[in-house]
Amino acid sequence: MMPAFFLETEVLYMKAEIIAVGTELLLGDITNTNARYLSEQLAGLGIEVYFESVVGDNKERLLGAFKDGFTRADIIITTGGLGPTDDDITKETGAEYFGRELVLDESSLNNIKSYFKGREMSKTNIKQAYVPKDSTVLKNEKGTAPGIIIEENGKVLVMLPGPPNEMEPMFNNSVKPYLQGREKHTICSRTLRLTGIGESSAAEVIRELMANSTNPTVAPYAKDDGVHFRITARGKDVEECNKLIEPVAVEIYSKLGEYIYGENETTLARAVVNMLMEKNITLAVAESLTGGMLCSRIVDIEGVSKIFKEGFVTYTNESKANTLGVSKDTLKNYGAISRETAGEMAKGAALRAGAELGISTTGIAGGGAVKNPTPNNEDISYDKPEGRVYLGLYYKGNIATKELNIKGDRQRVRNTAVVRMLDFVRQNIKDTPRE
Amino acid sequence: MMPAFFLETEVLYMKAEIIAVGTELLLGDITNTNARYLSEQLAGLGIEVYFESVVGDNKERLLGAFKDGFTRADIIITTGGLGPTDDDITKETGAEYFGRELVLDESSLNNIKSYFKGREMSKTNIKQAYVPKDSTVLKNEKGTAPGIIIEENGKVLVMLPGPPNEMEPMFNNSVKPYLQGREKHTICSRTLRLTGIGESSAAEVIRELMANSTNPTVAPYAKDDGVHFRITARGKDVEECNKLIEPVAVEIYSKLGEYIYGENETTLARAVVNMLMEKNITLAVAESLTGGMLCSRIVDIEGVSKIFKEGFVTYTNESKANTLGVSKDTLKNYGAISRETAGEMAKGAALRAGAELGISTTGIAGGGAVKNPTPNNEDISYDKPEGRVYLGLYYKGNIATKELNIKGDRQRVRNTAVVRMLDFVRQNIKDTPRE
Repeated sequence: MMPAFFLETEVLYMKAEIIAVGTELLLGDITNTNARYLSEQLAGLGIEVYFESVVGDNKERLLGAFKDGFTRADIIITTGGLGPTDDDITKETGAEYFGRELVLDESSLNNIKSYFKGREMSKTNIKQAYVPKDSTVLKNEKGTAPGIIIEENGKVLVMLPGPPNEMEPMFNNSVKPYLQGREKHTICSRTLRLTGIGESSAAEVIRELMANSTNPTVAPYAKDDGVHFRITARGKDVEECNKLIEPVAVEIYSKLGEYIYGENETTLARAVVNMLMEKNITLAVAESLTGGMLCSRIVDIEGVSKIFKEGFVTYTNESKANTLGVSKDTLKNYGAISRETAGEMAKGAALRAGAELGISTTGIAGGGAVKNPTPNNEDISYDKPEGRVYLGLYYKGNIATKELNIKGDRQRVRNTAVVRMLDFVRQNIKDTPRE
Repeated sequence: MMPAFFLETEVLYMKAEIIAVGTELLLGDITNTNARYLSEQLAGLGIEVYFESVVGDNKERLLGAFKDGFTRADIIITTGGLGPTDDDITKETGAEYFGRELVLDESSLNNIKSYFKGREMSKTNIKQAYVPKDSTVLKNEKGTAPGIIIEENGKVLVMLPGPPNEMEPMFNNSVKPYLQGREKHTICSRTLRLTGIGESSAAEVIRELMANSTNPTVAPYAKDDGVHFRITARGKDVEECNKLIEPVAVEIYSKLGEYIYGENETTLARAVVNMLMEKNITLAVAESLTGGMLCSRIVDIEGVSKIFKEGFVTYTNESKANTLGVSKDTLKNYGAISRETAGEMAKGAALRAGAELGISTTGIAGGGAVKNPTPNNEDISYDKPEGRVYLGLYYKGNIATKELNIKGDRQRVRNTAVVRMLDFVRQNIKDTPRE
């Protein structure tokens, strides 16, 4: 039986649907990433989504989707179809659905004008400054199409632009506070990010906690780099929410703390780079298997130039020997895909770049869907199975290595190798005192 | 007016809808990439898609979606919900919709058993071997859930597994031939892939051709690395289709040939690597701005070890000077972000790795959504605007460079720099005779 608390407040839950508008989605030209973003955001706000759809740039079909949607949900959020061309019909259709005329919105017109400052503004862009009468206009910080909210008889239609770089800040800055304002309660969430453990194993450890938690709730999210647990609480204010969340977070830390690398928006690469920056440890990278992917993930992080020295993509035995100083005996006796080579690559990278920490990957990505896989390495005499990967780490005169056997296609083997290497750094360096 | 040919055959067009089943999609846990894959595939088969939806793991709602869908479409394709757990209800719901019982399918049971060979098979997996009576069972080459096709009174329900690596080969190997078999005509398509020109500019060049073509049709697809034109013909057999496609392809080549780097599944990286392999030109890469992403894209290509020598991620001035031999005067006088540095990086990479061709990137990715962007380069005295990128290319004693000004956030600047660098190689090397 659910606790009384929930039975009492259940009526407050809002239900939402997401409608993506655009023939380009139906043709498979682009992926509907907006739906995922909004779904995750709405879940975080405690708003339930039971249905999502995609319709083309067609007024009749979109009107039908509004009609059907409002029989099931209180809120419909649309993305796309707010552009300046005749194909863009979301706003017109929304206005028609609620029987409202379109009126010129001066602030939107000014926003559009300032967007085009200097450049010629197409007349069609003026269309974007017309909004349904008595609607709430949401400023577009990144483009010309304003967002719109129409409210009537408890039904809410939120229309957002299609480009994710316009839609996401608009949702975050305008729609989220609006939806929070409609809730009688405050909803807060905190996400603990884990790596090195699968979703089902992690969920098993805190199974009882998850099953018995209603406020806050604990939900697992499988991600490329591991699993996230989102703790979501409902309370009268942020303080009350945090009081509810804290003991649950503490319990998860006590059971799974070794796997938790960060919280909320902190990616694994950021967590590792932050750790190295805090401890003032400089880094060099040597890649064979991952071919630049590991470096690229690290260099993505802002401020990394403080600790990142240099990267080497040594795909051939020749370059492993010449650039990194891997001994020819090691390559001959153990092969390019071996613990020994991984260790010497890591050490060579650190010494060559003048970095304190050197890390390396070597391995066989495997064929996956490919019928006759070519080994991804010049070392044609390799005798290791596909998916075999060695990680190397050199720090203060010591070498650590790790063997992995990764299932999946080429892309997955490489991705997983990058994630596991970042985690290997974290595990080895986390208890190192600041330099 | 449309030509008589099309009016006559229009009635043969099939309409399809795609329903993704899974609460994890509604929670934003994963992105619905299956919908994009299927949309693009169906468009290529000449099958129209007017509506797509996502429903949770809930029998009532899925039944409702089937009912609504079949009022609009002849074919519904579902993805997901074929797993072994109680949450997986797609097959059961499909069977119920058509009033059919589930019966054991021996071939599916054997496939599941062989999948688990040696390992313990959970009893719940046997559930996956039950299929609706009198349905067509599609073998799953990559997993345990068979796909299912139910046909009744001209309505077709195709149920496919959710994981893309199971769904895509099943669609390609089983569903595609099935759908082609239902068509009274054969449909073939050929895709020309362009880079270095935007969708609207390219479409403008062949606007008349696109507007006047009905069989074959010509449709543009905007992609990360440029634009694709898909030419789709309908005929009595492949030969007739190809005869229809050929003159249109020739016309597009005559107008936009310089931008076409490949056809069908050939990515830009593959086209460039193939070109280098054919001409037997070895390659070294030096990256600052792109931080390993360029290398990673190249090393992804099978067989690349024949020509790829080595990559260097020289993020600091120190590493540009020490590893690549960029002169300290160049760095001082022109800065790390300059044509001169890009050229010396490319030359240094080639000489150091013993490669014939050296390529390089340097630039400022810019902040994008970040409020106080940190320059992505140690060269803190930079005076170049965000998005400024220089490409360098060294080949046979000659240096070529290119300046780019790329709009967008960090990720987009880097991605675009990688694409433009690959195209720069193609433009410079395509007329070089084989070594």
